[in-house]
Amino acid sequence: MSIQKIKVGILGATGSVGQKFIQLLAEHPFFELVEIAASDRSAGKKYKDAVNWFLPTPIPEKIANLIVKNCEPGLSCNVVFSGLDASIAGEIEESFAKNNYHVISNSKNHRFDNDVPLLIPEVNPDHLGLLKVQNYGKGSIVTNPNCSVIGLLIALKPLHDAFGIELVNVVTMQALSGAGYPGVSGLDIIDNVIPFIGGEENKMETEPLKILGNFDGKKIEQSAIKISSSCNRVSVVDGHLESVQVKLKNKPSKDEILSVWKNFKGEPQEYDLPFAPIQPIHYFFEEKYPQPRLHRNIDKGMAVAVGRLRDCNLFDYKFTVLSHNTVRGAAGGAILCAELMKIKGLLT
Amino acid sequence: MSIQKIKVGILGATGSVGQKFIQLLAEHPFFELVEIAASDRSAGKKYKDAVNWFLPTPIPEKIANLIVKNCEPGLSCNVVFSGLDASIAGEIEESFAKNNYHVISNSKNHRFDNDVPLLIPEVNPDHLGLLKVQNYGKGSIVTNPNCSVIGLLIALKPLHDAFGIELVNVVTMQALSGAGYPGVSGLDIIDNVIPFIGGEENKMETEPLKILGNFDGKKIEQSAIKISSSCNRVSVVDGHLESVQVKLKNKPSKDEILSVWKNFKGEPQEYDLPFAPIQPIHYFFEEKYPQPRLHRNIDKGMAVAVGRLRDCNLFDYKFTVLSHNTVRGAAGGAILCAELMKIKGLLT
Amino acid sequence: MSIQKIKVGILGATGSVGQKFIQLLAEHPFFELVEIAASDRSAGKKYKDAVNWFLPTPIPEKIANLIVKNCEPGLSCNVVFSGLDASIAGEIEESFAKNNYHVISNSKNHRFDNDVPLLIPEVNPDHLGLLKVQNYGKGSIVTNPNCSVIGLLIALKPLHDAFGIELVNVVTMQALSGAGYPGVSGLDIIDNVIPFIGGEENKMETEPLKILGNFDGKKIEQSAIKISSSCNRVSVVDGHLESVQVKLKNKPSKDEILSVWKNFKGEPQEYDLPFAPIQPIHYFFEEKYPQPRLHRNIDKGMAVAVGRLRDCNLFDYKFTVLSHNTVRGAAGGAILCAELMKIKGLLT
Amino acid sequence: MSIQKIKVGILGATGSVGQKFIQLLAEHPFFELVEIAASDRSAGKKYKDAVNWFLPTPIPEKIANLIVKNCEPGLSCNVVFSGLDASIAGEIEESFAKNNYHVISNSKNHRFDNDVPLLIPEVNPDHLGLLKVQNYGKGSIVTNPNCSVIGLLIALKPLHDAFGIELVNVVTMQALSGAGYPGVSGLDIIDNVIPFIGGEENKMETEPLKILGNFDGKKIEQSAIKISSSCNRVSVVDGHLESVQVKLKNKPSKDEILSVWKNFKGEPQEYDLPFAPIQPIHYFFEEKYPQPRLHRNIDKGMAVAVGRLRDCNLFDYKFTVLSHNTVRGAAGGAILCAELMKIKGLLT
Repeated sequence: MSIQKIKVGILGATGSVGQKFIQLLAEHPFFELVEIAASDRSAGKKYKDAVNWFLPTPIPEKIANLIVKNCEPGLSCNVVFSGLDASIAGEIEESFAKNNYHVISNSKNHRFDNDVPLLIPEVNPDHLGLLKVQNYGKGSIVTNPNCSVIGLLIALKPLHDAFGIELVNVVTMQALSGAGYPGVSGLDIIDNVIPFIGGEENKMETEPLKILGNFDGKKIEQSAIKISSSCNRVSVVDGHLESVQVKLKNKPSKDEILSVWKNFKGEPQEYDLPFAPIQPIHYFFEEKYPQPRLHRNIDKGMAVAVGRLRDCNLFDYKFTVLSHNTVRGAAGGAILCAELMKIKGLLT
Repeated sequence: MSIQKIKVGILGATGSVGQKFIQLLAEHPFFELVEIAASDRSAGKKYKDAVNWFLPTPIPEKIANLIVKNCEPGLSCNVVFSGLDASIAGEIEESFAKNNYHVISNSKNHRFDNDVPLLIPEVNPDHLGLLKVQNYGKGSIVTNPNCSVIGLLIALKPLHDAFGIELVNVVTMQALSGAGYPGVSGLDIIDNVIPFIGGEENKMETEPLKILGNFDGKKIEQSAIKISSSCNRVSVVDGHLESVQVKLKNKPSKDEILSVWKNFKGEPQEYDLPFAPIQPIHYFFEEKYPQPRLHRNIDKGMAVAVGRLRDCNLFDYKFTVLSHNTVRGAAGGAILCAELMKIKGLLT
Repeated sequence: MSIQKIKVGILGATGSVGQKFIQLLAEHPFFELVEIAASDRSAGKKYKDAVNWFLPTPIPEKIANLIVKNCEPGLSCNVVFSGLDASIAGEIEESFAKNNYHVISNSKNHRFDNDVPLLIPEVNPDHLGLLKVQNYGKGSIVTNPNCSVIGLLIALKPLHDAFGIELVNVVTMQALSGAGYPGVSGLDIIDNVIPFIGGEENKMETEPLKILGNFDGKKIEQSAIKISSSCNRVSVVDGHLESVQVKLKNKPSKDEILSVWKNFKGEPQEYDLPFAPIQPIHYFFEEKYPQPRLHRNIDKGMAVAVGRLRDCNLFDYKFTVLSHNTVRGAAGGAILCAELMKIKGLLT
Repeated sequence: MSIQKIKVGILGATGSVGQKFIQLLAEHPFFELVEIAASDRSAGKKYKDAVNWFLPTPIPEKIANLIVKNCEPGLSCNVVFSGLDASIAGEIEESFAKNNYHVISNSKNHRFDNDVPLLIPEVNPDHLGLLKVQNYGKGSIVTNPNCSVIGLLIALKPLHDAFGIELVNVVTMQALSGAGYPGVSGLDIIDNVIPFIGGEENKMETEPLKILGNFDGKKIEQSAIKISSSCNRVSVVDGHLESVQVKLKNKPSKDEILSVWKNFKGEPQEYDLPFAPIQPIHYFFEEKYPQPRLHRNIDKGMAVAVGRLRDCNLFDYKFTVLSHNTVRGAAGGAILCAELMKIKGLLT
């Protein structure tokens, strides 16, 4: 069967997101990872010699001995996943798109391009319609939102559809892996919390407006929801926890909310995509749940855990959301984007 | 000089708050610790044999060999600090007050008694006027608020006085020592956050209304401020961090807020009380501050650290507050209450 | 096929080892978990209502609704796994064995009974011959060694066979889960190490002597190896790390040691038992490995990770050993014992 | 009085050891910190603008506004403390010594120079006699040993004097601050132990041989003690914990050992130097002590905590040692060296 798989490559393959892509793409039923690209410093080496691999599972054997290439068009594949640093991602990704590669990017650079979908497959699959507007010839660029946005919006989407969201307040407690590797110093995080993550609050307050915006076939009109976010770094390896408060146009009962969360499905579930969580939202009734260490890996790390739905003195309701920031929030989310594109014939 | 000190005792002396009282009362200029009382299990033993001492400084020598007594009136002192568990504190404290002891309590039981001050010396010293209404003869009961409330209200008080607070939203990241000892299991908190602390959200939403309430000489009229809180436990030893958002009646500029914080002083500062922080509020301009491990001990652990004042899309402003939960938020705060009472002649 | 499975029960099913047994026995090819027993406090309740479940995977559905029974013979199974507390395990296990149950115990009580195997399937499978000496009728007792001993001895066994071990020095850095739940307080372990684990050093210095002892068909003659151990508790969830030093009768080269580790296989591998690691010992050449968080789950948590083999100024060699204390070192190890007994016809 | 203080400077003032020097030298009775030097990148800036200050106490005010200079002779002081990185420390320190500065260095470069004392003031003060052999004119170089060596040797010195040490085995659990800042990534140390610290084992096995060596007035003859060490990094902010085993020429009783530890004093205690701990060794009888978080700050962080003295199956005794790695083990230890030199007239 592997003869029919789509050949894919990874840009920024030695970084933390790149490593996660490699781990998750091993044995993928749709995609065959055949090209590994990274900075000039790594290019020309075997992958195992170029990378400081820090995942608990070993480097897949056939990847370990691949020669790392430069991040330039010329890779023998027609889809590339990008985990490039934002300082260089913009131009490189554009160059690949112009040379007929489909680029699925985890970097922020093109997220607000007018013709680029900022895609969460369960939330705004119709935004893939923007690809018809793109001017990259046979190539394309699709972007994955910020890791703290994805979990939040999967929890909010069914509420928005059913009851109309007006206001969202969110305070995050984010994992170390969200800062890459080496990222946060151990000296800064043991017995501590850092109440600041550069650029993160702005992303959380703006990306949802595009993602929940209306696509009229040509362009996206930003949503009018108002969002405030406060972001903190805590001593957790993986899994972003978020204290969320919402005001809704039509205030439902708690049971109505629990019901729409329970029944929420998106296109990934309808198409039964390989990386789609069977149930996107898992609600926990125990007051002390969800917790990062216990629940970040639910449904392969692709589902969102929610709990503590309760009344709020200032908004309608408050609740807690947890999602795996490097799986659902980065590499796994991007792979699900590619799976949806493949099933819709957009990777040809 | 020690001949003139006021003799004090501790109820619940073996618990975590009790230990902190003992540590902080060593060498106190106003008070001499002469009585140590705890449960029947400990009574009759030397303190050093009854306690599982877990503070980094050793047990003060003259306390180590004191015989632990039962928590019953008959102690040779006229002031008692109570760190009793809420399951038994109510009756015991009442019994002491009726027997002419002044009780300064860190327990929640009497916080909402109509005639009992819920006291933060910098915030509502006039509420000590309630003691005239109390019916405990020569005795009295004064209570210290919840540890997560004290830091918050010290930061809010000057804003309330200057600009009028209407709405407060607060999401906490609280330290382990707030749960007592042994408290939270290591297995539950390493690489984790627990998004729930039993009873805490209710305390944070109700205690401020009494503390900021108006005292007309006879009773306290609750404040009309609206508060919503969400409480989380993080992997930090000491120091509660809080993400705060406020809506004010008269929206000031950031500089006006910084100015009222900088100039804020209360009665403890005016009387130059031993445990009074020189400056109650320290504002940090570095975006990544305040942090629990770096700033919890500011000014003997009695000051409040504030940072990240910024605009909010939903409220007027948001900022971060940090205070030491077992010093300012418990034993140290209660001692400051006693110091204020002493200077006002209320401990005779 | 499940009609042919052996029915098993768990004694002490609500504790930490009990929970791990339940998690690992779900879908076991040899065993069907049908009985759940715990203390009087839990008996009569549904398991899900009796347990404070703290594992990241949910309670297997058909176990969740089982009614917890008392720890008394009368369970409808003929094999019981015991995760009972040592304060009660001795008598209860004996009572089950006398009533024709096969007891595989993780508790320490019977480990040094002359007629009870202290079994690591890869290390001393011949000790199962002791069962012929036992006087429990159709029942039997087999014990699993201490969690810190199992990993150590799997690493030492091939060295002992090939080169003869004379002296062993071991200093451990042990995980929190080894202390059960709630076990160690978060306040005691954040930013800390506890250089003491009650009873642990004695177990590490005595259990290996029995396990590596010679069985002459009737009794075990203790090994003459000399062992010294020092045990420390560190801030790790799962996985005991051990700094090991050995003096060997015939000092080999490093390559010879690496070779015997690489080629080491035991009966579990020969029989291809379900819980047998494919390769019992994984050697890491990177100087910074093995590490608890990265390598504790190797081969389902049943393999042992070894690294840093180097010369020693006092002994012949030193190296680092890591194994998963609640899988290989407790529930998983006990299940492997049962699998070996089943394949040898000792569970009838 | 400050007019009589000796003017000192710091080389490498922005690094982690440099910051600790600045914190500890504030208000020092012998020394006045007047010069701050660092890399070209920092030179010319105010110290507060050049440094990423991460200590919990603020930058001393008069240091904050000092202009950082280059690490070249020309500083207006005659003593410099060096916290330079080993990659550049060697030449710079030599250059200062040749230009008549007294250099007290925390770097490893000159530790094994034949004419340079490797000094622990309580252990080998006579080695300062080497300064007569040095050829640096009016300047000199004195070095401070590795952080993990200092605590160990303070605990061993009285045993060596009284009973003669033959063999030492030590396994360390070392704090993050020993790796500098940012040092170890949070991702590498949360829920983990790293069983390797580059170069550390070699330092622990060789530095003690010089420090305990005999000085005959001209040169040091290395001690014949044999040492083996294994070094691990654990999730602790400050404080190195060490499991130690010793074989002694004349095996004493435990009481004899406790007695020599209790009575141990060195020249810093005799001269009552400012940074001298009143009692260099504190023995704890509680089995679970010493612990990094509880005991690292004993006696200003300058004393060594010892506990768990017990028999060993392979050596004579084993015990646990703890000392503060950045105070006693680095900046504080170096300052004590300078104090001893000052009192002996060696800083003129």
